[in-house]
Amino acid sequence: MTKDNETLRIIPLGGLHEIGKNTCVFEYDDEIILLDAGLAFPTDGMHGVNIVLPDMTYLRENSHKIKGMVITHGHEDHIGGIAFHLKQLDIPVMYGPKLALALLAGKLEEAGVSDRTELRTVSPRDIVRFGKHFFVEFIRNTHSIADSFSVAIHTPVGVVIHTGDFKFDHTPVDGEAFDIQRLAEYGEKGVHCLISDSTNAEIPGFTPSERSVFPNLDRVFSQAKGRLLVTTFASSVHRINMILELAEKHGRVVAVVGRSMLNVIAHARTLGYIKCKDDLLQPLHTIHKIPDENVLILTTGSQGEPMSAMTRISKGEHRQVKIREGDTVVFSANPIPGNTIAVVNTIDRLMMLGAKVIYGREHGIHVSGHGCQEDHKLMINLTRPKFFLPVHGEHRMLIKHSQTAQSMGIPAENMVIIDNGDVVELKKDSIRKGEKVPAGIELVDTSRSGMVDQRVLKERQQLAGDGMVTIAASINLDGRLFAKPEMHLRGVVSSVNR
Amino acid sequence: MTKDNETLRIIPLGGLHEIGKNTCVFEYDDEIILLDAGLAFPTDGMHGVNIVLPDMTYLRENSHKIKGMVITHGHEDHIGGIAFHLKQLDIPVMYGPKLALALLAGKLEEAGVSDRTELRTVSPRDIVRFGKHFFVEFIRNTHSIADSFSVAIHTPVGVVIHTGDFKFDHTPVDGEAFDIQRLAEYGEKGVHCLISDSTNAEIPGFTPSERSVFPNLDRVFSQAKGRLLVTTFASSVHRINMILELAEKHGRVVAVVGRSMLNVIAHARTLGYIKCKDDLLQPLHTIHKIPDENVLILTTGSQGEPMSAMTRISKGEHRQVKIREGDTVVFSANPIPGNTIAVVNTIDRLMMLGAKVIYGREHGIHVSGHGCQEDHKLMINLTRPKFFLPVHGEHRMLIKHSQTAQSMGIPAENMVIIDNGDVVELKKDSIRKGEKVPAGIELVDTSRSGMVDQRVLKERQQLAGDGMVTIAASINLDGRLFAKPEMHLRGVVSSVNR
Ligand SMILES: [Zn+2]
Ligand SMILES: [Zn+2]
Ligand SMILES: [Zn+2]
Ligand SMILES: [Zn+2]
Repeated sequence: MTKDNETLRIIPLGGLHEIGKNTCVFEYDDEIILLDAGLAFPTDGMHGVNIVLPDMTYLRENSHKIKGMVITHGHEDHIGGIAFHLKQLDIPVMYGPKLALALLAGKLEEAGVSDRTELRTVSPRDIVRFGKHFFVEFIRNTHSIADSFSVAIHTPVGVVIHTGDFKFDHTPVDGEAFDIQRLAEYGEKGVHCLISDSTNAEIPGFTPSERSVFPNLDRVFSQAKGRLLVTTFASSVHRINMILELAEKHGRVVAVVGRSMLNVIAHARTLGYIKCKDDLLQPLHTIHKIPDENVLILTTGSQGEPMSAMTRISKGEHRQVKIREGDTVVFSANPIPGNTIAVVNTIDRLMMLGAKVIYGREHGIHVSGHGCQEDHKLMINLTRPKFFLPVHGEHRMLIKHSQTAQSMGIPAENMVIIDNGDVVELKKDSIRKGEKVPAGIELVDTSRSGMVDQRVLKERQQLAGDGMVTIAASINLDGRLFAKPEMHLRGVVSSVNR
Repeated sequence: MTKDNETLRIIPLGGLHEIGKNTCVFEYDDEIILLDAGLAFPTDGMHGVNIVLPDMTYLRENSHKIKGMVITHGHEDHIGGIAFHLKQLDIPVMYGPKLALALLAGKLEEAGVSDRTELRTVSPRDIVRFGKHFFVEFIRNTHSIADSFSVAIHTPVGVVIHTGDFKFDHTPVDGEAFDIQRLAEYGEKGVHCLISDSTNAEIPGFTPSERSVFPNLDRVFSQAKGRLLVTTFASSVHRINMILELAEKHGRVVAVVGRSMLNVIAHARTLGYIKCKDDLLQPLHTIHKIPDENVLILTTGSQGEPMSAMTRISKGEHRQVKIREGDTVVFSANPIPGNTIAVVNTIDRLMMLGAKVIYGREHGIHVSGHGCQEDHKLMINLTRPKFFLPVHGEHRMLIKHSQTAQSMGIPAENMVIIDNGDVVELKKDSIRKGEKVPAGIELVDTSRSGMVDQRVLKERQQLAGDGMVTIAASINLDGRLFAKPEMHLRGVVSSVNR
């Protein structure tokens, strides 16, 4: 018997038709739990904006229902929005992995909202309860950041497995294997719905193990004559571990440059996710005394981010690191689409300064943290879900992922392709797209602690395209000009100009 | 005996450290010839700019020396700047291929500068003379646009071969083979310097023949049930020929959408570069009477350009073409880096409207018009030059191309890596980088027929990032406020905003 209130409502407020700001609402009756709350970065034309958040109207209006949040892992697209939301929402408790919560705690402190919630660390196979209707089991998975989880959400309509971000890495760098036994057990007992990461749904095959990067970095390191500069994602804890291990092997001390890299490494070392000898890491200001061939500089900026250390180094604008002939710079990351031009420009500038730059797929010095089509198939076969919901991807990827699922026998009517704000109504015997809740974007200009609303953005776009003319005219009460009017041009093309 | 004035000065004003605005000066004694004069498109942050041109200061100052221009082919990055330059420079004569000159003539007319130069069509192996010092032979090559040439420039210091844009396509769509016999003959007699296209210098292997696309497009077309929409570069005359041939084979009439596509096809048909039956092409407004399975719409917008037909179609903003369930949309072009996001967003929107979209490398429906490393090696071996100058590429590509040349025995000291504005001094026995001439960029806002100079751009960037506050205050002669000041905010974040 399915009554109308026996409906689980799944509402992704972000993360669909995009990669970023993953924020998912699970609602049953008078209870809501959240899964992750990330941020995205601005696209072209979002002038003066540095952070993009989902529209939280629905949660503000239903804040009394919120029982807590589940956090899958510590990437910005999963935890980066939380500090902003806590300024306007009460989220009584957050359960998540140790590393993610350590990174999150720092953000909450900075934003002055540490007292607005309670952070509780979970271990693999821990089961936590929210309100009357939800309990959630944390299942260890493998991803590019350490300490990452898939979750099994037990709800009145059945078990919903949310994969979080994952690939099947059978030889993880930290030895923490994907708990596929537990997934398989759920599959055996019956999974009602699988919600799965679609990032690489367009790419055939399996994603290689993170460990496959090791011999290739080893070869690159062994060929470097002078200083080594290496850049990767600050959050790629496994990669950083391998780089540190190789630095030690090749007799190089490591200086870390860039705020986010320093932050992640500090937390990851404290918690034991990064292991290295104390004297391997040296402050940047001391390394000029060390011979070039014994130095490795580990920096942020693998995506050509304008203010990052590597970008400033490439422009000769970094105070402490100047590129010189003999330096080898290694990009252990592929550019995310949209960053390609910034990255290749950075590479060009580094080469012009005399560095040898190692970049590009053929070197095998980067692999994705997300599974490809064969990983997706394995996930579906392990869990054998009745219903399927592809998430964490742009529209094309969701479509491809749904086609993969169909090729494995899940009927097309048992899955939905949704957009941010769509309400998925999951019942015991059906899945369907319901009405929509508000799901626009909120733009944050962190330098001004204000929101850039659509009107402001529109005005900025007009100003950028056309410039602005201001005319100051003083007019007497009798309507005549009092003084010569003054005209000011800002950003305006004057046609007399040549 | 080499006197100091026995120096050929080669000065690229654009096209280096970039792909775009190729413009090269050859100067000997009191004579200058130009090779191509292209445009580039604006990058992020060039607000309100739609065309980027090289700084022509050097040519303005030496305009009395200019004897004429050599045009290699009709791509925008080779002819798109000419109409702008003719407004300020006298270029007495331009020699080039029929198709390029037809496209150019239209531009000159639109800009009202048709009378400022004389266009003279050349045929393969034609030799033309400029002034006392230069004569130039046109050598048929193969590229993505029809009627393309490499050139042999005879100068007092020796023969300089400029490849233009090329790949070695041994089975060209139009049957016009690369004149490698003539290149080989120059190689046998002795080539002083080779100036060569570096676009794909980072990619191993040979670029496949344009013809390799044919069976793959054929397969895609045969699987389409409803309407077919196909987008490619407007200038890819060979591709368009194949698409038209396949349309006829599959019983579809073709409606062409997009100004540049209509323009190129009109000229190419008049000149015989595109051959098809008259009734194959039908005006767009008539095709609604024809069954879906008999319609092919050929459009611009393969790069997600904001104002292009395909982009407007994907946004539901095109008046005459509305996507519907059953449509198949084919992207017969790869996104140029920097356009990726715009392209995938377009694809996503088309899919959301119900279209099946065929895109991506695995379909084999696009090949580059530029040669890869093996093409470069063949070019070097055919011409066996003493000196080598890689052009038409970003810095990384120039470096890779020079490494390819070194791997074939050209000594490193016989080549230079240069930037726009560098003066290459080529003598009988040496090549070296001399001083620099001005080589910045000039930004054109075509909607306002003015130049956006660096100051205007800087102001626009500030306006975009911060917005603008204007305060109007009327102050009495005694220094007191005359009325309540008025404040206007444009694009400004007000902190009271929530
Ligand atoms: Zn993610
Ligand atoms: Zn992640
Ligand atoms: Zn070109
Ligand atoms: Zn070209």
